[in-house]
Amino acid sequence: MQHSKTIALDGMGGDHGPSVVVGGAAISLERHPSLKFLIAGRAAEIEAELAKHPRLRERCQVLPTDIIVAMDDKPSQALRRGKGSSMWLALDAVKKGDADVAVSAGNTGALMAMAKLILRPMPGIERPALAALWPTVNAECIVLDVGANIGATALQLGDFALMGAAMARALFHIELPTVGLLNVGVEEIKGADEVKQAHAWLKNTKLPLVYKGFVEGDQIGQGIVDVVVVEGFTGNIALKTAEGTARQVGQYLKEAMRRTLFSRLGALLASGGFKVLKHKMDPRRVNGGTFLGLNGIAIKSHGGTDAYGFASAVDLGFEMLESGLVDRLASDLDTFHEALGAEFDKKS
Amino acid sequence: MQHSKTIALDGMGGDHGPSVVVGGAAISLERHPSLKFLIAGRAAEIEAELAKHPRLRERCQVLPTDIIVAMDDKPSQALRRGKGSSMWLALDAVKKGDADVAVSAGNTGALMAMAKLILRPMPGIERPALAALWPTVNAECIVLDVGANIGATALQLGDFALMGAAMARALFHIELPTVGLLNVGVEEIKGADEVKQAHAWLKNTKLPLVYKGFVEGDQIGQGIVDVVVVEGFTGNIALKTAEGTARQVGQYLKEAMRRTLFSRLGALLASGGFKVLKHKMDPRRVNGGTFLGLNGIAIKSHGGTDAYGFASAVDLGFEMLESGLVDRLASDLDTFHEALGAEFDKKS
Repeated sequence: MQHSKTIALDGMGGDHGPSVVVGGAAISLERHPSLKFLIAGRAAEIEAELAKHPRLRERCQVLPTDIIVAMDDKPSQALRRGKGSSMWLALDAVKKGDADVAVSAGNTGALMAMAKLILRPMPGIERPALAALWPTVNAECIVLDVGANIGATALQLGDFALMGAAMARALFHIELPTVGLLNVGVEEIKGADEVKQAHAWLKNTKLPLVYKGFVEGDQIGQGIVDVVVVEGFTGNIALKTAEGTARQVGQYLKEAMRRTLFSRLGALLASGGFKVLKHKMDPRRVNGGTFLGLNGIAIKSHGGTDAYGFASAVDLGFEMLESGLVDRLASDLDTFHEALGAEFDKKS
Repeated sequence: MQHSKTIALDGMGGDHGPSVVVGGAAISLERHPSLKFLIAGRAAEIEAELAKHPRLRERCQVLPTDIIVAMDDKPSQALRRGKGSSMWLALDAVKKGDADVAVSAGNTGALMAMAKLILRPMPGIERPALAALWPTVNAECIVLDVGANIGATALQLGDFALMGAAMARALFHIELPTVGLLNVGVEEIKGADEVKQAHAWLKNTKLPLVYKGFVEGDQIGQGIVDVVVVEGFTGNIALKTAEGTARQVGQYLKEAMRRTLFSRLGALLASGGFKVLKHKMDPRRVNGGTFLGLNGIAIKSHGGTDAYGFASAVDLGFEMLESGLVDRLASDLDTFHEALGAEFDKKS
């Protein structure tokens, strides 16, 4: 039997609160029956939902609080007013060792600020990163940072490479994940010195990953590497642009299929195929941004997701726990920073 | 009758050279019979292609040269060895006033460096930008910079806004185009100070555009603004990511439609609809990155395009000429820089 793992949930986060959080946990529990849960939030509302899921009720403890971080609170407001909130209690459970991972569908900026404050960055890590699972033609890759910070030094990009590789090892079960550095195609263009320096380090330093050099924006979805490294401003915009483009093509497709009687009939006949496409493009399947580089794992689910989508974020947490990601990552980072040694001290 | 406009073509640029360039010019001439052309390159090869297009032959002059910038030349090599090349002669024709716009399907980095050297930035412009036409659910928008430079100061972002608005006026025939500044969603995140400063300036300065504030990556394709402003590293990656995602969804769709007999039959019936979709997503329809901010217009066509795609780039040049974009832009920029006046001198 597996060792039982506990996941702490922010029961009030997201647009739909407890119904989605509790419903999602119930779905994930069916897939991973060894899981246990802590759910923080308004006890009456959470209990009402738990009453619908007796199996979950047995494996779950409620952390009662009436304090809730609003979806539109600024990070600074959330830190000021959110002590003891459902988001706070979920993260604090990880810090205290009562849970192994925290999942919240709440306000991203607040979660980021609070996770950093409560879980603290790992030794040697200046900046945590937000990692996204990105669907590719083969399967998925990991892209980070998609918005935890703006800008990154060469050393931080190197850290992101290691964090992403650790996550890829955990999720894809590959001992030496392939890593690429996102860059623009034109050579000799001035600027992006951090990217060039990180490239030089990754190329020449012995690390537990296979460094594949630069990748361009159109190669992310082709799945040519397991991990794509980029600073957070560009990474966030790339991620949102990809989401927007996929939706846009979907709209085009819908319109095109409505045009004539033939195309409507054809679309009806091909509806099985369209269903596969819809499933493939379903953002709920790869729901969950992961904060890496903290002493513990915090996962951000989309705020507007349903129980099925929230369950994906919980599943993600389960897989990361199973693999001992955090411990392994700490030792990888030590190796990297030691390897850079004097060079790092000189350059940064 | 319209005043006749002349477009100078790099006859040897791109993967297919004269056949695509001459073929594309012929297609564009059918649409715009008042056009004249200068085509630079190996005379024999170009004449051989022109023999197939007698109408074009009449309205075209060949600028003979055997020097060609290779697709993989570095910008610095191209500048060193490319004097008198077909790319050089096309740009030089614009400089001398023999042509109004230059179009090349050659090496982007080389074209950028050479255009900057030959045409020189407009007075007051520190950095030219590469502008892309981006398909939206309604029509198209303009995104710049998509890779002429890496990084941009607040003032440069402001200049990009004006340049993009000038191009939108020329192409979309809107007197006051709407403009957005690409940013990430989380507030209070540290960094991107240039973006914040540009936001403040655009919001408070009287300019010939309607400033709509920040937009996020997923809003570009929704067509909520006519012009999206971003620095070149992020812009390039966003553009390539969108292209890659559109292709990826196309691959998903193909696979989904091949799955069962029903879906194959359905796809056959709906083939008219698919054709519309394919046309809508055809990258040849909006082929042509435009260098803005130089004393003259230089357009970059995709290197791998066919005659139909090259014709789109030539059409783009024609529309920009028709509108007197360069002159109007010069006066807009003057107004902007004067309006910022003392504040600009203080901050940059």
